[in-house]
Amino acid sequence: MQPSGDRLREELDFLQPFFLGPSGENDRWLEELIVEFVRDHAFWRRNFHPEDGHRITAAAAYRPDFLQAKARTRQALIRLSGELKRSVPIFHPRYVGHMSSDLLIPGLVARILTTLYNPNNVSEEAAPVTLTHELGAGRDLAAMFGFNVDPSVQPCAWGHLTSGGTVANYEALWNFRAVKFYGVALQAGVKRAELETGPVGPLKQDLAEYSEWELVNLSIGRTIALRREVAEAVRAQDPAAFPRLRRAVRRERLETLGIQEFFARHPGLRPPRVLVAASAHYSWEKGMKVMGLGTAQLVKVAVDDHMRLDPGHLDACLADAFESRTPVLGVVGVLGTTEFGTVDPIHEIVAARRRWNERGADFFVHVDAAWGGYLTSVFRDPDGGFLSREAIRKEFRHFPTDLVYRAFTSVKHADSVTIDPHKLGFLPYAAGAFVARNREIVDFITQQAAYVFDLGDVEDEVPREDQLRNLGQYILEGSKPGAAAASVAVAHEVLPLHGEGLGRILRHTIRACEYFYESAREVAERLEDRVRLIVPFEPDSNLVCLALNRNGNRSLAEMNRFARRVFARMKVDGARPVQEARFIGSYTSLRREGGEDEQCGRILRELGIDPATFVAVPARPEEEADHIFILRHTLMNPFLMDGPGERNYIDMYWDFLEEAIDAALRE
Amino acid sequence: MQPSGDRLREELDFLQPFFLGPSGENDRWLEELIVEFVRDHAFWRRNFHPEDGHRITAAAAYRPDFLQAKARTRQALIRLSGELKRSVPIFHPRYVGHMSSDLLIPGLVARILTTLYNPNNVSEEAAPVTLTHELGAGRDLAAMFGFNVDPSVQPCAWGHLTSGGTVANYEALWNFRAVKFYGVALQAGVKRAELETGPVGPLKQDLAEYSEWELVNLSIGRTIALRREVAEAVRAQDPAAFPRLRRAVRRERLETLGIQEFFARHPGLRPPRVLVAASAHYSWEKGMKVMGLGTAQLVKVAVDDHMRLDPGHLDACLADAFESRTPVLGVVGVLGTTEFGTVDPIHEIVAARRRWNERGADFFVHVDAAWGGYLTSVFRDPDGGFLSREAIRKEFRHFPTDLVYRAFTSVKHADSVTIDPHKLGFLPYAAGAFVARNREIVDFITQQAAYVFDLGDVEDEVPREDQLRNLGQYILEGSKPGAAAASVAVAHEVLPLHGEGLGRILRHTIRACEYFYESAREVAERLEDRVRLIVPFEPDSNLVCLALNRNGNRSLAEMNRFARRVFARMKVDGARPVQEARFIGSYTSLRREGGEDEQCGRILRELGIDPATFVAVPARPEEEADHIFILRHTLMNPFLMDGPGERNYIDMYWDFLEEAIDAALRE
Repeated sequence: MQPSGDRLREELDFLQPFFLGPSGENDRWLEELIVEFVRDHAFWRRNFHPEDGHRITAAAAYRPDFLQAKARTRQALIRLSGELKRSVPIFHPRYVGHMSSDLLIPGLVARILTTLYNPNNVSEEAAPVTLTHELGAGRDLAAMFGFNVDPSVQPCAWGHLTSGGTVANYEALWNFRAVKFYGVALQAGVKRAELETGPVGPLKQDLAEYSEWELVNLSIGRTIALRREVAEAVRAQDPAAFPRLRRAVRRERLETLGIQEFFARHPGLRPPRVLVAASAHYSWEKGMKVMGLGTAQLVKVAVDDHMRLDPGHLDACLADAFESRTPVLGVVGVLGTTEFGTVDPIHEIVAARRRWNERGADFFVHVDAAWGGYLTSVFRDPDGGFLSREAIRKEFRHFPTDLVYRAFTSVKHADSVTIDPHKLGFLPYAAGAFVARNREIVDFITQQAAYVFDLGDVEDEVPREDQLRNLGQYILEGSKPGAAAASVAVAHEVLPLHGEGLGRILRHTIRACEYFYESAREVAERLEDRVRLIVPFEPDSNLVCLALNRNGNRSLAEMNRFARRVFARMKVDGARPVQEARFIGSYTSLRREGGEDEQCGRILRELGIDPATFVAVPARPEEEADHIFILRHTLMNPFLMDGPGERNYIDMYWDFLEEAIDAALRE
Repeated sequence: MQPSGDRLREELDFLQPFFLGPSGENDRWLEELIVEFVRDHAFWRRNFHPEDGHRITAAAAYRPDFLQAKARTRQALIRLSGELKRSVPIFHPRYVGHMSSDLLIPGLVARILTTLYNPNNVSEEAAPVTLTHELGAGRDLAAMFGFNVDPSVQPCAWGHLTSGGTVANYEALWNFRAVKFYGVALQAGVKRAELETGPVGPLKQDLAEYSEWELVNLSIGRTIALRREVAEAVRAQDPAAFPRLRRAVRRERLETLGIQEFFARHPGLRPPRVLVAASAHYSWEKGMKVMGLGTAQLVKVAVDDHMRLDPGHLDACLADAFESRTPVLGVVGVLGTTEFGTVDPIHEIVAARRRWNERGADFFVHVDAAWGGYLTSVFRDPDGGFLSREAIRKEFRHFPTDLVYRAFTSVKHADSVTIDPHKLGFLPYAAGAFVARNREIVDFITQQAAYVFDLGDVEDEVPREDQLRNLGQYILEGSKPGAAAASVAVAHEVLPLHGEGLGRILRHTIRACEYFYESAREVAERLEDRVRLIVPFEPDSNLVCLALNRNGNRSLAEMNRFARRVFARMKVDGARPVQEARFIGSYTSLRREGGEDEQCGRILRELGIDPATFVAVPARPEEEADHIFILRHTLMNPFLMDGPGERNYIDMYWDFLEEAIDAALRE
């Protein structure tokens, strides 16, 4: 259901106060807030030992050298500010390119004001306030996904910020690997320390009796439990043996031995695979390289006609791995692909795990929700819990499809999630986040002293809450800006992560996408005498692609050239003032090698392209191509459904596109 | 030479305009700048399609719901601002704790103003302006270290920002590993593609004739050259064979196969070791785990009496590796350790490489200058080049020792460097940086299409300058804040990286440290009737430690308890208003297991402690301890040598310490 005029007005009214606006409309208010808190900071400084007096006298500011230094500073800043005028106007509804838009004023001001205090969230000692905000922001995100965040109930989730989704994805691999091979190291350590555990673990047998295959197919929860049970068993037998065991286990861990030596000691084990949809972000390849796991172990699961991970092929990939006794470190589902905004069926991944569990095989599940994670707020009832699909559908024409609904409401069964506040959280760079379903996982990755590192020592343990405040021990990064944490926390406070908070703004962007999708059909009709225009994949969220071919052309290479000519009119061109751009878009490609052959066949058919011109290695570059060039539009600007006069920015985009197509046809 | 009163005044005058100041003295100016650029940004927005009119009318701001939303936002920000009053006053000269201090106004304002534009430096398309600044900032840093930055001369350095030194250290490992094992993959690829190269590489022989040991002992420059030579040889023989070779090489790379399979295919090769001083930052351990190399392959080189890497032991460690035919991925020298501020003899590492090169063994050199990197500016002549040691010494009593001078001026022989603008660059978090001596190294780590990925294809190659603007392809992280880049670039512009720019401020902090060190002797005399106070290591830079024991005590455990009681008076205590803190310090420990036994022996002797009470596992915790607790003071605040009345903050610190000691003695 598209909103009626009144309803639309209401929606726009709701979000207006939170952004600076396409014409800087809220400039005075933003300035007022910034000035208030810059002053508040400066005056705070005066309260710290005021008896010391001033180090810079008021008179000093009139010295010629002082004035010169100020002039040089201002000059450099004026130059920077002038250069920045060539920035991409990501704040404007005419920007429908990458995943950037205007910023939430609460988050922006929080970021700026906290930068003045410059806390370092690596540890509490350096950032008593913003560390609380970081763990709070992590809790907000975890709760939005539906994870338990009550510490008195197990498992309890936790989350923290990263510099971006890429690092959060690395953290998933790093966490998963640490747990996956812990059981094997534990067994080896017990053997080395010449101990017996008695009945432990899910099979209630001595640890020595477990096969390595069984140990690498324990869930995270079971590995955590096994670790505790072994520690308790050994301590009960002989407290003095415990430190010996601890050292022995540490020596056997993959993190200590390195991958080569670890697998050399366990010749029956193979290095693990990671399964991701073929449409996943390139950071997964980078992560496999960085971690030493190798891209050859990254299995690209085929995607279906809608660019979503194909559950059938996932199952085939899992069967292939498990039947050859190859551990699967994890399966990654994408909640909103970077290129197409499509949503993988997370529920199918979770169901596959359940099925394989029955056959003694396990894998961890990570959801890469860097893009779509915040859309979960649309699904959340302000009173807690998820809204029913019916309740949500009332607000839309198509959204959420059954698949999308089930995907979003199944994230809570995943082991960890990546989400980027600097994308659909409308916050400044850099702010990514990593959320884990079970915070006990940090014991497997900590850099801390032995007592929490290799085997839990219950007596010594400080409460988990307090441990996590020593954040640098549990994350990939070191020093990190408390300002990012404050920014995320304040934004969550002002616009809570449910349908009446941030979800209300995001709902509006999904509607814009539905409007775009529906009007695309009309536009296609209007243009059918000149070009074929198609939306290659039904949008799952608020990102939409367009493919186009001029009538009569059957060559893919020619189609790509034509689409590139159209795109040339909506790209940032450093040679021209940015003000000349009427709309700014982005593009992507479907590649022959990307495992996307089937969808490509359909798309080429719809466009009237000879599929024989879609080849792996073009021999005749005039005719053939190895990719399909498509336009890509992120529709996250909150003002897209508004516009000057009667028409909104999406209508205006279509007019622009028609002119761009006509101009490209004339070229 | 300590500065005389006039000279000191001159120094203080120089730096006054660049900081907000201990009492927020420059508040009006900071506010003026921020307001100017917030307005400039808002008015810029109005230039983008002004014909569109406004999306938020002036009248809207009076709607009750609008006013309520504003009120909620301001309320949340006021709460945050109130909470931040409990922040650690890192800006103040009474803060002598961790590596944080006041911020440079040019960099702070640049950061804030650029955040409004929110560019994403992952690629030029999203950040045309700040990407230039990022590469420029990298060039500034590279030039400061003495690397060549003229693209017409080989090798040409490059640098980029990271979220911090930890990630920069990971990048060093990631870059090094990619190059180290490339030669072996290249050889395997050539064999798989059934090609012959003819004479290539330093030995002018067919690639097949190289031993794997020879290939993993090529320098970075030689590996780059070998790659080119092989590509050219194959292309000259048969251009059609080239794509085949490219694919074959890619399949053989460690990054593709993963560590386990790569070494399984090359059973004659061992996984590589990394050598670091025992005093290095814990991120090196974390990095070895993350990369799958294993902490067992991290060799901790012993440190000498001054907590500096011991060249003799380094050589023994290298001999141990090379004699067992174990490749050494890299040796890491630390330019200013996090814990003690001590400087490793970089020149000795470089000399060791030269010696081992003659015996056919090679390793890469990384300098972890996260802390000390910017001190290089003190060594730089404004006219270019390094100042002589004599010229620098004129400004100091001790600094730089011959070792320190040689270390700083030898960084240019390293392969890469970590440096943190958010430490001695006086800039906000998060801003680290990675600098590589030879930018051609990016070909080994890029995620890009095959043509630049596995073998250079000269014909297709875009100029390196332009390639690097696609930054996300060459770095560990993905999305990244252009605001950090603008901040670093503007700070470098206003305070260039030489002795008359930023170096002048840093010189001042080193002098403060010299003053602290010298006055410590007088204070020790003043206190000798009660305690023994020593500076355990002569400070190499602007970080200094103190150890103390009460007279008559011979137990280490008791000494630690006493020192902790003293420290309790200078730690941030959440339960009390921060304003009550008179001075704020930090602490560190020398650990029994840290390979620091010899220095510990000397220190315990000087303190009058029975060395028998320093044990690995304390059996009698009342008497024995496994660590020596010491106070640690980072002296980076620019106003330390100033103070109310006749006395400066260091004098005041000593008075405070004496009172704290007396109070602890009474406890």
